[in-house]
Amino acid sequence: MPRYRLDLAYDGSHFHGYARQPGVRTVQGDLEAALHKIAAVMTTDIAGRTDAGVHARHQVASFVTDEPIDCVKLARSLTKMVGPEVVVYRCELVADDFSARFSATHRVYRYRILNRPFPDPLRRGMAWHVKDPLDVRAMHEAVQHFVGENDFASFCRQSNGKTTLRTVVSASWCTRPDDLLRFEIKGVAFCHQMVRAITAFSVEVGLGKLEPIAAAAALEARDRSMANGAAPPHGLVLWEICY
Amino acid sequence: MPRYRLDLAYDGSHFHGYARQPGVRTVQGDLEAALHKIAAVMTTDIAGRTDAGVHARHQVASFVTDEPIDCVKLARSLTKMVGPEVVVYRCELVADDFSARFSATHRVYRYRILNRPFPDPLRRGMAWHVKDPLDVRAMHEAVQHFVGENDFASFCRQSNGKTTLRTVVSASWCTRPDDLLRFEIKGVAFCHQMVRAITAFSVEVGLGKLEPIAAAAALEARDRSMANGAAPPHGLVLWEICY
Repeated sequence: MPRYRLDLAYDGSHFHGYARQPGVRTVQGDLEAALHKIAAVMTTDIAGRTDAGVHARHQVASFVTDEPIDCVKLARSLTKMVGPEVVVYRCELVADDFSARFSATHRVYRYRILNRPFPDPLRRGMAWHVKDPLDVRAMHEAVQHFVGENDFASFCRQSNGKTTLRTVVSASWCTRPDDLLRFEIKGVAFCHQMVRAITAFSVEVGLGKLEPIAAAAALEARDRSMANGAAPPHGLVLWEICY
Repeated sequence: MPRYRLDLAYDGSHFHGYARQPGVRTVQGDLEAALHKIAAVMTTDIAGRTDAGVHARHQVASFVTDEPIDCVKLARSLTKMVGPEVVVYRCELVADDFSARFSATHRVYRYRILNRPFPDPLRRGMAWHVKDPLDVRAMHEAVQHFVGENDFASFCRQSNGKTTLRTVVSASWCTRPDDLLRFEIKGVAFCHQMVRAITAFSVEVGLGKLEPIAAAAALEARDRSMANGAAPPHGLVLWEICY
């Protein structure tokens, strides 16, 4: 059966995450319901699951169908049905062996922190407000310990016995205009809540509660209680899926 | 009586504008209700009214009261009462002759357009989506005609016989990262819907429907029908009040 790829973006604020779940509104649930109506699609494959409240600037889904598909029309119809919170901005026919999940080579996430004494009503949906001053250099130094292949058990919410080995290609904290700090992390894949756990850990370092070198010890411990906490979801954006 | 100044920001999405109106939610209504409870304030003066849906990164209000005021506490209490959509980030005692409205020397507004074929769910509350490509150089050229003292009758929603003479200090369109176009205009004061009318006119020029020089003719006509339309409110931000 012909196989298609969808590129989409969403505002995760009002979704219970990406993955389909009975009884609650999810991005996958909305998307598959629309695809089922238009093209008799039963199920979709996805590049990266996101948690409740997490956004995506770029997410990729794939599916198969025997129905005749006009790609431009399909993207437009889907956006009408699932928008404005979800936008399907591209649809294309792909090779039979393409999988949104398994063909992806890397995922890039960004996390934004508003770092100043008072919050910003205009950015409250896309940045975590941390009012005490953060040392962004120390935060950047800390996250360098995560680059490479490491066991991220200390930074994963649940492993259920599955491997928590992951490869991080790059990680950086930088300052941006208007009191924003931005974290960007690129990896082959991530385990559950890993980016938000690393962000929360970075903030501990930025506040001076931990030294940057503590990142190495936390990794080494392979114990979730060593790096407790997760940054709130609304500051996190799945930024790009690379193939 | 002692006089105080408040500096605030707000997300205008769910307000019927800044100015108090009976029966609907407004920024001034919420703010004055909170000030009345805390400090027996009856009324506030304001630097610049904004329409329904328009945001403010910087707005200034002033009021008088005999109640003893701890400025730091007052700002914090107000933000708790009117937040998260409104944030009062500073309160200070000012001279008796200070007026948020009349002491302001200039107002700066910014308008953002997302210019690409598909919308962005993450920026739908703060940028107008225009899908056809815009010629930003032509738009910039057009708005230069508005700089100086001019009669903006063609760009004001209602004048009710009042003067529509206004002084614009600077106006510029530029491109920003991620497919954004940004308009910034600084003036002594603006008439009703003037920035949104100029933005809509700029877009006509950007689409090639009008030449930049048409701005001069539209001004000259002093007739609202010469420059019909107004850009949607959600792309507009009252950026700064200068004293």
